[in-house]
Amino acid sequence: MDKAGGGRMPNFIRRTPEGEDRDRQICSDCGYVAYENPKIIVGSVVVEEGRILLCRRAIEPRHGFWTLPAGYMELGETTEEGARREAWEEARARLELDGILAIYSLAQIGQVQIIYRAHLAEPGIAAGPESLEVRFFTWEDIPWNEIAFPSVHWALKAWAEGSPGVAVNPAEDSRGIAGL
Amino acid sequence: MDKAGGGRMPNFIRRTPEGEDRDRQICSDCGYVAYENPKIIVGSVVVEEGRILLCRRAIEPRHGFWTLPAGYMELGETTEEGARREAWEEARARLELDGILAIYSLAQIGQVQIIYRAHLAEPGIAAGPESLEVRFFTWEDIPWNEIAFPSVHWALKAWAEGSPGVAVNPAEDSRGIAGL
Repeated sequence: MDKAGGGRMPNFIRRTPEGEDRDRQICSDCGYVAYENPKIIVGSVVVEEGRILLCRRAIEPRHGFWTLPAGYMELGETTEEGARREAWEEARARLELDGILAIYSLAQIGQVQIIYRAHLAEPGIAAGPESLEVRFFTWEDIPWNEIAFPSVHWALKAWAEGSPGVAVNPAEDSRGIAGL
Repeated sequence: MDKAGGGRMPNFIRRTPEGEDRDRQICSDCGYVAYENPKIIVGSVVVEEGRILLCRRAIEPRHGFWTLPAGYMELGETTEEGARREAWEEARARLELDGILAIYSLAQIGQVQIIYRAHLAEPGIAAGPESLEVRFFTWEDIPWNEIAFPSVHWALKAWAEGSPGVAVNPAEDSRGIAGL
């Protein structure tokens, strides 16, 4: 994270800034308040003829495990643009999006995941620099024991259920919020 | 933003960190890379007997204009918890959420807005510290010329249309992404 700086790492302390109601990370060297907000992950369940696109990770965490094409949304793009960019970067796939499949809050790690339904806008996939390989799997062939993250399981299951509406965290992970 | 520090403001420059593909804000004093990601706004269209809850802003921007109860999602909460917290802070309203109404990407200002349908879980509303007043409006009585932000118009219209599924940016603001 500090590769580019070559200098000191910031010396953060937690303190409540004046006029606020909660602690923030504040650099005790320069006074910078690092507002930490949840980060958005955008990704897609890409389906062609009933088969689902997965990418085997060439990076940590979970190197060698299978995941959906997904990653951090960047400034200056829409959620849809981000989902399509990630599919290109990780699987050289050009997507057409078919609406929102799921929104997951991972409060413990400060993530909100927005997952789209999608299909290929043009033929062809190939491993991008962050993938070891990319493949379409039938449901039965999905390597269930080598899935990178719980939310990949959730999204695949939400897709298979085919319910209308937006899927959210499964009940056992929902922080007890009923009715959603 | 720097109230609490009392010291120097960080001296950021834009540069591409090693191993990355785009510029980031880097503090030239201490080397800290300030990853800027889109921020999430969570809010609700709260409806009771066909009337819609609006809050008149006691803060800038758009002081005195009407908005939905909504604000920045915080670390450590889910999107649902954030939407309910904001309704409490701004309108002293305890909400029950009824699913996702809309997701808007405001790429130019680095925001993603997640807007829920909601109703009161218990009776009573009152202006919180960031509101001058809070009120339920019939559709006809909504002060259309005193609405704070375009996305408030969008969300109200999406609610009135009552379509199933999740609303997204209106076509003229969609950055040309067809099919969504």
